[in-house]
Order: sequence, then structure tokens, then C-alpha cells
Amino acid sequence: MSTPFPDKPRIAIIGAGALGCYYGARLVKAGEDVHFLVRSNRAALMAQGLKVKTPTERISARKIQVYGSANEIGPCDLVIIATKATANEALKSILPPLLKPDTAVLTLQNGLGVEEPIADIVGPGRVVGAICYIGCMRTAPGVVSCSFPGLMTIGKFGKPAGERTQAVAALLRRAGVKCNAQDNLEAQRWHKLVWNVPFNGLAIVAGGITTDVLIADEGLKLLARRLMEEIVEAAAKFGHEISRSFVDLQFERTAMMGAYRPSSLIDFEEGRDVELEEIWGEPVRRAKSVGAAVPRMEMLYWLIKQRLAARNAALKAKARKR
Amino acid sequence: MSTPFPDKPRIAIIGAGALGCYYGARLVKAGEDVHFLVRSNRAALMAQGLKVKTPTERISARKIQVYGSANEIGPCDLVIIATKATANEALKSILPPLLKPDTAVLTLQNGLGVEEPIADIVGPGRVVGAICYIGCMRTAPGVVSCSFPGLMTIGKFGKPAGERTQAVAALLRRAGVKCNAQDNLEAQRWHKLVWNVPFNGLAIVAGGITTDVLIADEGLKLLARRLMEEIVEAAAKFGHEISRSFVDLQFERTAMMGAYRPSSLIDFEEGRDVELEEIWGEPVRRAKSVGAAVPRMEMLYWLIKQRLAARNAALKAKARKR
Repeated sequence: MSTPFPDKPRIAIIGAGALGCYYGARLVKAGEDVHFLVRSNRAALMAQGLKVKTPTERISARKIQVYGSANEIGPCDLVIIATKATANEALKSILPPLLKPDTAVLTLQNGLGVEEPIADIVGPGRVVGAICYIGCMRTAPGVVSCSFPGLMTIGKFGKPAGERTQAVAALLRRAGVKCNAQDNLEAQRWHKLVWNVPFNGLAIVAGGITTDVLIADEGLKLLARRLMEEIVEAAAKFGHEISRSFVDLQFERTAMMGAYRPSSLIDFEEGRDVELEEIWGEPVRRAKSVGAAVPRMEMLYWLIKQRLAARNAALKAKARKR
Repeated sequence: MSTPFPDKPRIAIIGAGALGCYYGARLVKAGEDVHFLVRSNRAALMAQGLKVKTPTERISARKIQVYGSANEIGPCDLVIIATKATANEALKSILPPLLKPDTAVLTLQNGLGVEEPIADIVGPGRVVGAICYIGCMRTAPGVVSCSFPGLMTIGKFGKPAGERTQAVAALLRRAGVKCNAQDNLEAQRWHKLVWNVPFNGLAIVAGGITTDVLIADEGLKLLARRLMEEIVEAAAKFGHEISRSFVDLQFERTAMMGAYRPSSLIDFEEGRDVELEEIWGEPVRRAKSVGAAVPRMEMLYWLIKQRLAARNAALKAKARKR
């Protein structure tokens, strides 16, 4: 990757869910050359564009470029993967037409082990991972309600951040995203799990509750802390130090979020795929592989897995009845 | 307790739930002098008596003696407590009028710490605990459907079984109950937890599933085993050895039970009290007090506690609407 990142890069965004629309709208609004690849709602997106509401802003991008196949888009300088890891199979055919020799591929996917399958397709050298601290929800095609814009941390897969990663971060900052490049992506991913594992998981297992209800329950709050401690201990075995104050901070932030529905709960309740393996399964397996004790995280994994299976069976039965 | 247990003891049974009706019907049918103390359905019980259906028998006791207060019954030789531990407060006024100097008080309550509050009322010397391995359900006042009659193990509180405990066991055997007296009641109670903790608990937390569904789920089945192992380890710290084969046996027995709804799940779903502290809370506290690691059992306790609180809040809201 010796050529410099262009000032006006050609950008492809794969997926127009909450994240794709949110970051896409910001990039379009900032005057970037953005090409959206979507599976559905293409006509609606072309007709209506994107509308994003945050607590302080309204961003509207009326004219956007929307495509139904990667070949129509062609080679780009930056590919942003905004689909869920559970839909990774499709990337095998989507990504190759979008690549130049030095295209950066940025994945916004959650959890552990999300860079590896992408690296298998495009090679490890160009993969950049993003950890999005954000609370947003797609309410209609192209329409996103963002309760908490937060920040984005990006890092190069398996290596310290280089010039290109820094350039991608700068591009996102120019579009109004609080973004910084860090040297240890893996450590950042473990940090993100500290919130995601307990709050996304318990919200589902405790019967579909928002985070305010969760932390108002004494037992669940203590359980969330115990789960966080397991993650801290497991991360430490991989050399990633997560401070006690970071754990405390999660509760302070959560208290400020009000009646927040974690994204996995929304996915669960709306019948969509949940990143079960990325957020719970893979962390449990990695922790156990280095001898870290994660009994509660494993129990949570099993409980979510069963709930998902039960939900899917119920959806199937309902579909058969129609 | 020097006087011998009478050949035809005067027996009081407190409560006409599934267990009170089941054992009561057997004792009445065997010609024993049984006096039922009930809070509700007195007229129905007097008019219709008791009807018990097991896989092999139909037991009908048409004429039974039913009372609304302990004073009407007066002193007995044996008092059988067939109400839940969650209703123990009432025993403070119920038990004293039923006592002679040497009355045996047999509690059928589930879990750990159920003898202590009774001993506080009647003195420890007369308390006998029963562990009922039974699957039965009250379907209407006085009507019990018993899918699995099982057996009953009784033991003296804090002491080896004496003559009187043996006499109570013999009385129950004469009434057709497979009953034996054991010397170590506490060890028996830990044995019972091996099944109750995982199956009663997970059935609730996993969204109201029967035991066949539970053991068909790979993760939940493994989780049930891990929970059992925690109980085995905790029990060992108290000097109670539970064998590996006993753990295996639980799964074999459960496989034969079919689509079984654990009693706590029934209680949970029908809006009744659940023995949260006796089956989960107290075992967790005792285990932790001796340094046994019970992370999964504690997590299960917290999850059930939250589900119960949510259920109670929903019931309250519904009652207000009426």
C-alpha cells in the first residue's frame, strides 16, 4: 500500500441498515463520492435519499447513488462493510469487484472474529476494523434515528495503524464522525465487549428489557458487572489491559442512556439475525482457549442461543400458517 | 420424645395443594385419622373430597375432615406441612394449637433452610423434613393429577433419624407412599437440588419450556450439567458426597419424564409464589459461605429473581386495570 489515499476517494458502502445509512448520510453530506450497495429498498432509497436525526442534528441527503450489484459500482478506494457478520457469505461475491490493489476495506461489524472472514476474501493487509460506540436505529428505508452518536475507533487488522488507516479516520472526521485510529484493534474489540456482552445479552435473556430496567434490577446489575470482570480477565490473558475505571464508566454511561434498547434486542425482537457468535460465542471460545474462566459469559451464550432457536422456530411456524 | 408414636395417630395436614391432596388422599384411604387445614375451597373439599389420578391408580377419598382454623383441629400426633415455604409467616399462628409435647412436624417443603423457620416456632427436636420426588399437579380443588408418584425421603432435622421418624416413615408406607427414613436430611436436600436447581430454574429462564425441550437443547443440557457440578462441589464442602452417577441419573430420569413442566415453572406461569430463596438463594448463600464457586447458580438465581419481579409487576398492572 504505497500509493497515498486519494483526497476524494471513491467509497462503497455495503448495506443500508442503521449504520450504513448513518455514516453514509454523513459522508454524502460532506461531499464525498459514496456508492451504496443494497439488497432491497433500492427504489425507495433513490427516491427519498437518507434522513438522519440525532439529538442535536438533522442530516438529510436527498440524492444518493444506489446500486443493486457490486459490478455496477466497480473498484473503489474504500469499502465500508455495514452489513452484519451473519450475512458474511454474500461478501465472497460482493467484495472482489470493488477492489483496487490498495483498496481499504473497513468493517463496522461487531464482536470478535469479524475481520478474519473478510481477510480471507480480500487479504489481511487491507482490512481495517471499526468499533462503533453508537446508538441508532433504522425506522424506515433510509431513515435513521440516532439517540447517541458516540464515537468510532478504527484500527488495522493485526497491525498498528498505518498511514492509510489514519487517512480513513481523517476522512470520517471530516464527515463529522468522532473517529480516531488506534494501534491495537483487538484490544479495542475486547473493550467494546465489556458493554455489549452483558447489556445486549441480558436484555434478550431477561425477557426483552431496556437498559434502564436492567440496571435498576440489583441482581442483573451485579451480574452485568461479573460478566464484565470475566471479559477483563480474559482480555488480560491476551495482553489487553482493561481498567477498572473503564468498567465503572460503562455503568455511568448506561445510566445516562435512559430506556435504551440494545441493538441485539432490537434484532431479536424484530426477527432479524443476532450476532450470537461474534459477540458471545467467539469471545467464550477464545477465553477458554487461554484458560480464562468465563462461566457466566458461556451461560449467557447458551441462553441466548436457545432463545434465538426458539424464536426462529416460532417464526417458522407462523410462516407455515400463512 | 419418650412416648411411642401411636398406632392410629391424629394427623393434621396444612394446605390442600398438590402435595397435601396427594399424600392426604393416600392417608385417608388407608384409614388414617386425617384433618385438613385449608385457607380456601373448604366447601368444595367437604362436598367432593379428594380425587387423585396416577399412571396406575385412581384414589378417591369422598369424605374428608376439613377445617378453617388450627384451633378447630386441636393437638395432633403428626402435623404435615404441605404449604410452600413462601407462606411460612402464617405457620406462627397455625402450628402452636396443633402441638402436643411430642408431636412430630413433617415439612414437605422444597429447598434449603426450610426446617429452620419451623424449628423456630415448634422447637428443633420435633422437626422432620421430607424430600418428595414426585411430579404432580392440582387441576381443581381436591383434584390431583400425578404423572410420577416417585418416592419420599424423610429425615430428622439436624440429627440421625430416631424411632419417631421411623414410625412416620412406616405410617406413610402403610398408606402406599414409597418412603424411607434417612440419617442425613441435609445431604438428602442437597441431592434434591441437583435436579431442582437446573430444571426448575432453566425452565423459567428459558422462556417457559418443558424438560424434554430443555434437554434437547445442547447448550442448556450442558448448562444443566455445569449447574449440577456446582451443587456437587458445594455439597462436598459441607461433607455431603454426591456421586457422579447420581448426576448422570438425573438426565436419564428426565429423559423418561417426557414433556414435564417443573413445579416452579407451573407456579411461575400461574402467578403463584416460587420458592426462589429456598431452591436458589439459600443454596447460593450457603455455598459462598464455605468458599464454593457457584457462578452459574448465582446467575440463575438473579435471572429468576428478575423474571419473578417482572411477572409480579405485570400482574399488579393487570389487577389495577380491572
